[in-house]
Amino acid sequence: MKASEKTEEYKNSGLYKLRHSLAHIMAQAVLQIRPNAKLGFGPPVDNGFYYDFDFGQEPVSSDDFKEIEKNMKKIIKEKQAFQTFTKSLSEAESMLDETDQSYKIEYAKELVETGKADNGQLNFYKNGPFVDMCEGPHLEDTGKVPKGSFKLDKIAGSYWRGDEKRTMLTRIYALAFENNQELKDYIAKRELAKQREHRKLGSELDLFYIDEEVGVGLPMWLPNGTVIREELEKWVHEVEFKHGFKRVSTPIITRASLYYRSGHLPYYKESMYPPMKIDDKDEYYLRPMICPHHHKIYDAMPRSYKDLPIRLAEYGDVFRYEKHGSLSGLLRVRAMCMNDAHIYCEPQQVEEEFTKVMEMYKFYYDKLRLGNFRVRLSLHEKDNSKFVNNEDEWLRSENIVRDVLHKNNIDFEEETGEAAFYGPKVDIQVKNVMGREETVSTCQLDFVMPERFDLQYTASDGTQKRPFIIHRAPLSTHERMISFLIELYGGAFPTWLAPVQVLLVPVNETVMEYVSRIKDQLFEKMIRVEMDDSGDKFNKKIRKGIVKKIPNIWIIGNNEMEQKSVTWRRYCVNEQTNSSLEEAIATVVRWRDTREMDNFTDDL
Amino acid sequence: MKASEKTEEYKNSGLYKLRHSLAHIMAQAVLQIRPNAKLGFGPPVDNGFYYDFDFGQEPVSSDDFKEIEKNMKKIIKEKQAFQTFTKSLSEAESMLDETDQSYKIEYAKELVETGKADNGQLNFYKNGPFVDMCEGPHLEDTGKVPKGSFKLDKIAGSYWRGDEKRTMLTRIYALAFENNQELKDYIAKRELAKQREHRKLGSELDLFYIDEEVGVGLPMWLPNGTVIREELEKWVHEVEFKHGFKRVSTPIITRASLYYRSGHLPYYKESMYPPMKIDDKDEYYLRPMICPHHHKIYDAMPRSYKDLPIRLAEYGDVFRYEKHGSLSGLLRVRAMCMNDAHIYCEPQQVEEEFTKVMEMYKFYYDKLRLGNFRVRLSLHEKDNSKFVNNEDEWLRSENIVRDVLHKNNIDFEEETGEAAFYGPKVDIQVKNVMGREETVSTCQLDFVMPERFDLQYTASDGTQKRPFIIHRAPLSTHERMISFLIELYGGAFPTWLAPVQVLLVPVNETVMEYVSRIKDQLFEKMIRVEMDDSGDKFNKKIRKGIVKKIPNIWIIGNNEMEQKSVTWRRYCVNEQTNSSLEEAIATVVRWRDTREMDNFTDDL
Repeated sequence: MKASEKTEEYKNSGLYKLRHSLAHIMAQAVLQIRPNAKLGFGPPVDNGFYYDFDFGQEPVSSDDFKEIEKNMKKIIKEKQAFQTFTKSLSEAESMLDETDQSYKIEYAKELVETGKADNGQLNFYKNGPFVDMCEGPHLEDTGKVPKGSFKLDKIAGSYWRGDEKRTMLTRIYALAFENNQELKDYIAKRELAKQREHRKLGSELDLFYIDEEVGVGLPMWLPNGTVIREELEKWVHEVEFKHGFKRVSTPIITRASLYYRSGHLPYYKESMYPPMKIDDKDEYYLRPMICPHHHKIYDAMPRSYKDLPIRLAEYGDVFRYEKHGSLSGLLRVRAMCMNDAHIYCEPQQVEEEFTKVMEMYKFYYDKLRLGNFRVRLSLHEKDNSKFVNNEDEWLRSENIVRDVLHKNNIDFEEETGEAAFYGPKVDIQVKNVMGREETVSTCQLDFVMPERFDLQYTASDGTQKRPFIIHRAPLSTHERMISFLIELYGGAFPTWLAPVQVLLVPVNETVMEYVSRIKDQLFEKMIRVEMDDSGDKFNKKIRKGIVKKIPNIWIIGNNEMEQKSVTWRRYCVNEQTNSSLEEAIATVVRWRDTREMDNFTDDL
Repeated sequence: MKASEKTEEYKNSGLYKLRHSLAHIMAQAVLQIRPNAKLGFGPPVDNGFYYDFDFGQEPVSSDDFKEIEKNMKKIIKEKQAFQTFTKSLSEAESMLDETDQSYKIEYAKELVETGKADNGQLNFYKNGPFVDMCEGPHLEDTGKVPKGSFKLDKIAGSYWRGDEKRTMLTRIYALAFENNQELKDYIAKRELAKQREHRKLGSELDLFYIDEEVGVGLPMWLPNGTVIREELEKWVHEVEFKHGFKRVSTPIITRASLYYRSGHLPYYKESMYPPMKIDDKDEYYLRPMICPHHHKIYDAMPRSYKDLPIRLAEYGDVFRYEKHGSLSGLLRVRAMCMNDAHIYCEPQQVEEEFTKVMEMYKFYYDKLRLGNFRVRLSLHEKDNSKFVNNEDEWLRSENIVRDVLHKNNIDFEEETGEAAFYGPKVDIQVKNVMGREETVSTCQLDFVMPERFDLQYTASDGTQKRPFIIHRAPLSTHERMISFLIELYGGAFPTWLAPVQVLLVPVNETVMEYVSRIKDQLFEKMIRVEMDDSGDKFNKKIRKGIVKKIPNIWIIGNNEMEQKSVTWRRYCVNEQTNSSLEEAIATVVRWRDTREMDNFTDDL
């Protein structure tokens, strides 16, 4: 199904009608307290609806929400029927002029002039005294709005037609769902999301920050965040080693000619940084992707079928130009470090290699408890110039990938027109705590670049053949993956990923030296340990550790010193346990080494 | 002592006189076989001397070296005295015109016109029939040339005055040393160096390569070279962790304003890549160094004396623009990855921290057997605008560093005018196999940047103070360090750094499956193992392994399979030993884990 079909489906849904009708109800209620307000647009959105108003000299604030909501409830009680009718432009103009709705008049003219009005007729909906130029659909009457299904949310400024040279209108946002329970669920989820939002936690836990003097969209990773990057990369390094990947390291700037060859230039240019001209002639670019470098390395020496598959891996920096306004925390950045790899293989090896890659995805995502994703098979669209023109290869490649997904019992949805320009891809779509979906990672089958880079291998029959390429990046970029993990874990990382793995809390001065020796012992084992030797009371020390979401807090007083034990407080587990020091150290080292997801063993 | 003083010292040495006299002797000898040749310049150089000739239509090749050398020996036997005299420009012109020495005439005019000739008088030296315009000094007579002290080396083209628009002359290079033994030593050393040259080995061992389409000065690290990078970095990570460093990760592009603040712009601009203009206004640069980013991270939160020293570390990419012509393998590149760190400390901590850094240098260099270095203390020069103007701070900082070196019994030489613009530095000067000295790494004390970046901490008395900064990068950049290591080890890396750690050689088909199980066993332990399962004879398999300089070759036949043992051949050790399989595996794992320098345990 195409994205545009989905939108169509939503437009015909009951929820859309409800939200759309509520927008009219809110506008009517607002006009009751501000009769001179001029109306802008008022569409449904993902979590409810909004309406734009020009209040002139009589602004509205969130203090007025109570009264507006009261008015809305009254309108709902009145069961005003929604009725539709049409008018010609001149009729519409004179009607709208009566209530001085100049924005609506402007839009009515535009609809007619651009031929968007059917037969020059403009559509209107009326409920009670309120009339709005609108295509519908709507509920039967205002009485069909379920009780407790909506709530006014917030006020924001918004330019008329999004044009900053036009008037700034006041936009009132409201939440609306099928019923009160869904509304309450959404609000609770949003509250949780706000607590777990990666920018908020990133700052509170000193993981990263954005420094305007350094640049926008360029995160500065503080020591705590760098630990997470490095632990993930170390893990990947081991996993990829065992899967026969070889790491390479390639330069992050490159001659323009390389991207003309790959086809990224000139088509991808607007997502790239501007070139740097050096040696009086050559243009160099910050690389937007790593693929061409790996293709060059494949091509650096003769390859034989005996060497294939060749799996080249690199956790490498890439750079993409995104508009200032679309940058957001770690999710939308201008520089990122990607868990990239390319597998060069014979045609008959594609299925096995693609299967192994899918298994690797599953292994990673299961381990990280990233369960909340759906798999999308992104296909080409016939006769669309966005895609390389080779229908046979497209169908063949798409079949290979589809088969792999079927054989591995992976549920997926197909989407036409979402492929890479050089081949079909599997997209892993992850929902964040708010339910917003993002592509966290893709896996692509490429039949185009081997041709463009003239890649070859000597086949068993002695002839020169072209390999297939699989592009894969299961852990996405550090930036994107860690933004998901922060939100998924609410900042409470398992011991192996935690910036501080153990906090030692000495209860009094007497045990200080003893605890300091424990610290040395842990440190020697490369455990990230901190000791709170401040003058604070031990309860405060524990609270400070909890705020930092440290997974293991070991409290040590006279008893513990005598018995060579620790009182162990796991993050968010109120019940403390006593453990021998030896056992405690061994456990934490084991959790680190086996990458135990101990943040999930208890209910967080 | 200043560099310019050193040059002066060399010019007054016997070796300089010898080489300079030999240049005249060679020119005379060449004129004997090419009487119409015109002379260019003929100075002494580091390993001998050269002379430039215009041979017109009668070229000379290395086939003529024998005859020229024979003529030279005859001239030496003749004990021609070197005599000096002066001439005015017009006298000189008429004399040089007789032998049609137009290049000399051009230079004579230039010397007089630019006032470089004393009182307008030009200096000449004459020995036998040969006259040359020259400042000297020379030997007493040609008979003073020690027997066997020189050897004609090679021929190259060279533009007159280095100007590619002028005539291409023929340059004849010759080697010359104090005596025959020194000459022989040099030639042997150069032969060894040629074998060990990092570009040659880098290519033979598939460590890295330069791809013109990717860019010049931008090494592409192949899997074998990447292993060495990553093993070094892993080691550094552990060492720095134990020394209390915290890793950070910062963007490699940055707003111009950051470098204006640090003072690198505009002064350092010619060593930087050109800026990229984005968002219609901001200029972003590829970073030429990491320091400013770390200073920003220090400044990202309030710091107290209790937190100090703060040690921020990053193995990060930096970019420097070098002229195309000066690029060379891994030694002179345009992109490099630096073992950087900055220590922020209180003034009274500087000595201890600097000492610890020096100890860390010693630890690294001892381990890597990088013994062939000298330590240089680089100081500022008074009243030189290259250095920040603060004489008191300079003297104070220089004294601190000098004291640390003394207290640690580190031999060093002082050099005025070689400091960083913001403070004194200790340079580690390493000689390569050819004896050419390069700065491999520096350690700097910085009293300027804390001011420029307004860095502060709350001192124990509650006041705000400025920290000192120590800049250090013991392992230099991956590029530079690995170029040294390749040459030092002649490409034979110890097991822990070796791209392939163990090569398994099955002697026959019968043992193939057994050996393959050993391979799995090693692989499971993350040992980089390869098995030669080709149809080659086992002796050929061993030779192939030796060519790749694999440190451990295990040969396994029927006997070894029965006894669960391996016949173990260490790189370049002819004697093979027998070892139980269990013991062999344990040894290699131990060498890996303890980073044993097993390439040095035997005589390579």
